Amino acid sequence: MTEQDAVKLMNDMGRRARAAAARLAVLRPEVKNRALMAMADRFEAAAADITAANAHDLDAGREKGLSAAMLDRLRLDNNRIVAMADALRQVARLDDPVGEIYDMRTRPNGIRVGRMRAPFGVIGIIYESRPNVTADAGALCVKSGNAVILRGGSEAIHSNSILARLMDEVGTEAGLPENAVQLVPTTDRSAVHAMLQMNGLIDLIIPRGGRSLIEMVVRESTIPVIKHYDGNCHVYVDASADLDMAERIVMNAKCQRPGVCNAAESLLVHEAVAADFLPRIGQRLAGAGVEIRGDDAVCALVPTAKQATEDDHRTEFLDLIISAAVVPSLDAAIAWINEHGSHHTDAIVTRDHDNAMRFLSGVDSACVHVNASTRFSDGGEYGMGCEIGISTDKLHARGPMGLVELTTSKFVVLGEGQVRD
Amino acid sequence: MTEQDAVKLMNDMGRRARAAAARLAVLRPEVKNRALMAMADRFEAAAADITAANAHDLDAGREKGLSAAMLDRLRLDNNRIVAMADALRQVARLDDPVGEIYDMRTRPNGIRVGRMRAPFGVIGIIYESRPNVTADAGALCVKSGNAVILRGGSEAIHSNSILARLMDEVGTEAGLPENAVQLVPTTDRSAVHAMLQMNGLIDLIIPRGGRSLIEMVVRESTIPVIKHYDGNCHVYVDASADLDMAERIVMNAKCQRPGVCNAAESLLVHEAVAADFLPRIGQRLAGAGVEIRGDDAVCALVPTAKQATEDDHRTEFLDLIISAAVVPSLDAAIAWINEHGSHHTDAIVTRDHDNAMRFLSGVDSACVHVNASTRFSDGGEYGMGCEIGISTDKLHARGPMGLVELTTSKFVVLGEGQVRD
Repeated sequence: MTEQDAVKLMNDMGRRARAAAARLAVLRPEVKNRALMAMADRFEAAAADITAANAHDLDAGREKGLSAAMLDRLRLDNNRIVAMADALRQVARLDDPVGEIYDMRTRPNGIRVGRMRAPFGVIGIIYESRPNVTADAGALCVKSGNAVILRGGSEAIHSNSILARLMDEVGTEAGLPENAVQLVPTTDRSAVHAMLQMNGLIDLIIPRGGRSLIEMVVRESTIPVIKHYDGNCHVYVDASADLDMAERIVMNAKCQRPGVCNAAESLLVHEAVAADFLPRIGQRLAGAGVEIRGDDAVCALVPTAKQATEDDHRTEFLDLIISAAVVPSLDAAIAWINEHGSHHTDAIVTRDHDNAMRFLSGVDSACVHVNASTRFSDGGEYGMGCEIGISTDKLHARGPMGLVELTTSKFVVLGEGQVRD
Repeated sequence: MTEQDAVKLMNDMGRRARAAAARLAVLRPEVKNRALMAMADRFEAAAADITAANAHDLDAGREKGLSAAMLDRLRLDNNRIVAMADALRQVARLDDPVGEIYDMRTRPNGIRVGRMRAPFGVIGIIYESRPNVTADAGALCVKSGNAVILRGGSEAIHSNSILARLMDEVGTEAGLPENAVQLVPTTDRSAVHAMLQMNGLIDLIIPRGGRSLIEMVVRESTIPVIKHYDGNCHVYVDASADLDMAERIVMNAKCQRPGVCNAAESLLVHEAVAADFLPRIGQRLAGAGVEIRGDDAVCALVPTAKQATEDDHRTEFLDLIISAAVVPSLDAAIAWINEHGSHHTDAIVTRDHDNAMRFLSGVDSACVHVNASTRFSDGGEYGMGCEIGISTDKLHARGPMGLVELTTSKFVVLGEGQVRD
């Protein structure tokens, strides 16, 4: 595909999306919800077609030599199709954020000034392997009143194509505008490059995938991007911590599901409790099969610990490994986290109110927890109902992103003929 | 300056700013406010030094052949220095947004989940000519807990230097960290290019100036940018409008201060009231010296109107000129505004509630007004106390940006030892 063809293809998609977006923005919630429910039913009814399309992707993946883990991420079986359909139904049941007016105040001249939540317009999602993102991201965008242009990975092109086609077909039957959900029909990279330059047609780009994908998008995009980078999450055990609580939280944060971004990767312990706490947590962690990579102070107190490198303290292991260090003060812990962490989720265990508040203010992360496991850092656990990802950006959305984060706001002014003096 | 030198210079400034930001984030409001008050006093005390530095810029500007208007924008006299000082005092008196916790909810397991406003960290401001931006932007950033790197225009380098130096000196004496306010000491363009690539050291870039400056920043920056583009603002007179009110609002929106971004540039009239309204508003506008550029229907009803080109309908005149068109329906007006406008501020005049609500939902602009002049689109008029600009972006901040918009948020979780099942 020539660069020119890619630009034309993508701009045509963008114009169709923009036309859909104008109609989606003023659609009643019940129409959107009915469409999402109908999409869910159609996924289940068309399960055989979906698995057949998916089989093409799996065959191609095997030929390309994808790993077993990659093939598993790519696979759609009946259970996963039902789970995907249920996710759409859950999104349909969430409150509609569009049109909510908040922060209303009356000015001295009588005008009422407030803010109204409004869709962005057109959102571009660029993602890798897992085809359920097509359904999830499509549903969240439609519910929040946005048209979406989906660009999935080449490994999943057949699966993504049928899912997006079904969503658009069923959606249109149920009252959505045509082209509310579009999938880029080519895996040619030039289409992505064109997409990232479509200011005025796409309002927001959300890349979901590995660091190299996200870095490419940031480098090339002239459209605003919301990014989802690593989670190198810390648990800091303060001098005043309840050490039983600290043990429970460290074990849960590290071991409950080590392969996810809100698992703890690093343990900091105040020197005043190091001699009490480190030997016992060292034993518990070793018992759970966790390798500890510590600084000198940790190694002196934990016989099973290995010496940590500087890199270890900055690494998201996503595995049964934890880095550990002893710090002389709360301020040193905060500075350490801001320096070594990834600004995702960090927790303090403490009984001291001032220290809790100081940690909340001082740690520059999307999520800061007091006496609670880092594993709660999740849209569902936070009560947001769903999430399109966890933003490690500071602009617009930080931390778990739900439906509200897929909207922008506009100022609304209600007057009775006021003019400015 | 070699590219390498520029990168080194800017990265050193960035690291100093980041160190300052960590301390600013946890500073008590009274310390920041005292510093701003002291800066204001010092500006007034050092007025002679400031005007002397400004004279260098004015001399250089005259030699370079700057226009009288440009030289006027550049000029700092005693009155303007007092006004600049007063602006700092006003910022000091505003509520401090940092640390506010909102949207707190208790989850079934007892964890409390809320959001806390937090500074971005380091903000980069890139601006042209007017030296008072140095003081305004510096003060707003400090008050919101952000360190700032200011890069002003080359025409104002002497004025900007002394203002930034005084702010940093006085601020440090009053308890701010060093380098809370830094000015890029060179006008070399390579410093700007380096600045726009400093991800990890600068969190947010705000360009203030003409379209070409902003477009350059968007093109080159890998850091998130909040943009301030044109205001091609519309007033739409609905079929049900009170025509006396419509006349007042159109005259105010167009004529009260035609050179600013929230002045009306375009008038739309529903065909049902065109024959009543256009002749009278045509006469009023002509009487105020406003040139009307209309479509065929407008020209047939307003004898003084000239034929509008397609370009006229898309132009921000910033002058006593207005484009005008007749539309067959409310929906046509909404579509026209979304197509021709600049998504800044648009107003409807109507007595019909459904039409008012439909206009609010359908117009994709930062500010949407019902029965109120577009001229109210301003941080001060909206009750925000101040503004660093009016964002035409949809991400993070849209419309007038005050102190709150210079902060991000973090999720805060308060637990009593909860872990995830």
